[in-house]
Amino acid sequence: MSIRIIVTGGTFDKEYDELTGSLRFRETHLPEMLRRGRSMLEVQVDVLMMIDSLEMLHHHRQQIVEACVRVPESRIVITHGTDTMAETAQVLAATVPGKTIVLTGAMVPYAFGSSDGLFNLGSALSFAQILPAGVYLAMNGRYFAAGHVMKNREVGVFEEATQGE
Amino acid sequence: MSIRIIVTGGTFDKEYDELTGSLRFRETHLPEMLRRGRSMLEVQVDVLMMIDSLEMLHHHRQQIVEACVRVPESRIVITHGTDTMAETAQVLAATVPGKTIVLTGAMVPYAFGSSDGLFNLGSALSFAQILPAGVYLAMNGRYFAAGHVMKNREVGVFEEATQGE
Amino acid sequence: MSIRIIVTGGTFDKEYDELTGSLRFRETHLPEMLRRGRSMLEVQVDVLMMIDSLEMLHHHRQQIVEACVRVPESRIVITHGTDTMAETAQVLAATVPGKTIVLTGAMVPYAFGSSDGLFNLGSALSFAQILPAGVYLAMNGRYFAAGHVMKNREVGVFEEATQGE
Amino acid sequence: MSIRIIVTGGTFDKEYDELTGSLRFRETHLPEMLRRGRSMLEVQVDVLMMIDSLEMLHHHRQQIVEACVRVPESRIVITHGTDTMAETAQVLAATVPGKTIVLTGAMVPYAFGSSDGLFNLGSALSFAQILPAGVYLAMNGRYFAAGHVMKNREVGVFEEATQGE
Repeated sequence: MSIRIIVTGGTFDKEYDELTGSLRFRETHLPEMLRRGRSMLEVQVDVLMMIDSLEMLHHHRQQIVEACVRVPESRIVITHGTDTMAETAQVLAATVPGKTIVLTGAMVPYAFGSSDGLFNLGSALSFAQILPAGVYLAMNGRYFAAGHVMKNREVGVFEEATQGE
Repeated sequence: MSIRIIVTGGTFDKEYDELTGSLRFRETHLPEMLRRGRSMLEVQVDVLMMIDSLEMLHHHRQQIVEACVRVPESRIVITHGTDTMAETAQVLAATVPGKTIVLTGAMVPYAFGSSDGLFNLGSALSFAQILPAGVYLAMNGRYFAAGHVMKNREVGVFEEATQGE
Repeated sequence: MSIRIIVTGGTFDKEYDELTGSLRFRETHLPEMLRRGRSMLEVQVDVLMMIDSLEMLHHHRQQIVEACVRVPESRIVITHGTDTMAETAQVLAATVPGKTIVLTGAMVPYAFGSSDGLFNLGSALSFAQILPAGVYLAMNGRYFAAGHVMKNREVGVFEEATQGE
Repeated sequence: MSIRIIVTGGTFDKEYDELTGSLRFRETHLPEMLRRGRSMLEVQVDVLMMIDSLEMLHHHRQQIVEACVRVPESRIVITHGTDTMAETAQVLAATVPGKTIVLTGAMVPYAFGSSDGLFNLGSALSFAQILPAGVYLAMNGRYFAAGHVMKNREVGVFEEATQGE
């Protein structure tokens, strides 16, 4: 079973730039994380874009849709900023049939000490192997079907919600 | 959905004792790991024992069987040393029906920098939520049914194998 | 020998705020760092302020001068943002006689994985114990006398420079 | 000013071997630690040996003496196991005149999360730059002259002691 990991950025891959004191993207940490988890899964990592999901526009989401349709794998994990992950999931659910797509991200960059990134990656890869075709979010150890989840910005966790909330 | 985590020790929870320069067990790191993963799962953590799985005897495995039968949850994750994890899995498969039991561990202690522990925990908790009743191992990002897996000690990964190998 | 550590903030003590995705100050990490270094020095930690040194105004530097004069210790370490550390050092050199004052900071927050903070703290505390009365900067493993150092912002290191550069 | 770092092993450089579950030596972490500290010191790192100091015999200490005499630098830092560091220091004090030699080590391997290694390295390099010719130990943030220090094994810290204790 082969899984495609599509990287779009988000807090997951942010780093601290010591010259400017700000956060930025450089190389994705996915390969390093798979090594740390000692993953023996057959996985292909594609870096599609590296942006904060608050900056995602329609054409970014279109690129993600096209990538999901184009790749041969029927099981896909997408790393994504948590702020608009639920939105991207709904677009995918409406446009990409017949594949198991699991979106995940992190509340703290993997590059920092106390990140949830590695936990979420292990979680998402497991859900991607078993869940039936459909689009899901994997955060906080749980999974949510697209259209039935929202990010609670006050406490920084994902919760069930009815579509359109 | 409620998950029971039964802690039995193994490399997962080992620590470095600076006074003796050796490795030892103290408190389990499970609660700290669940906090780091920002887990919102309904989980109960039980510390059943804290031993190296190479030191497990029949009565240790009996305790694990009894704990799995006794707890009300039908979905269980067991943290366990990797050396004899496959063995404990086979005993459970023969004695505990009707529950989804996922064993996991770590090749490097969580307390050390480059541990696979957090990745494996996220992975195991996800498999525990969706696999049907049965006994499984979750290691290296994958899952294996009890009786069909062995630890390859030369390279330190888990692989499929026929029962009795 | 007693050393006073005066905390003023800077990158040294910044943290990642996962709800806003930005960097901010909370509690100082100094006590935790002294524990990690297993320091047996007689040290008193005072949090005077927690600000980015780019935001320091005259009255902030006045507070630092007053604190250095007021404390009984004649050996002082000040944690400070690296951007205007050389400036504060010159003000101190002109106003606080008879004490060994060593300023230090970090290019990467201690709270992140790859910080120079612990190295700089060990370095600064050592210089504070043996340098004669005067004001110094301890960065990049070296020490510089106040008035003879500047931060090279292009590469993020401290170098010797003549006063007023 | 040039400093020679002579690596002899000790807990400082130990690593976790995941295939055997034991601690062992591989490559020294000194270069990585100097990069992390963003050291701009002129430093030459020599790996003389990689052993636990409890296993040091007379000929090992002779090698260390010869290395200290041979190198052109007059300022030297030696990384060493903490168990017999005081002993090696006394041998050096009796045989190597005219150089500032600072021994340091770690209670927890640098490769693990909560190591004092980086703090001790910053500390030792600073003492090496300033202290007059002689042999010293740098541990717990402090420095001790050779012959006047012992390791308190019960609590794992270094304390002043009269020679021969």
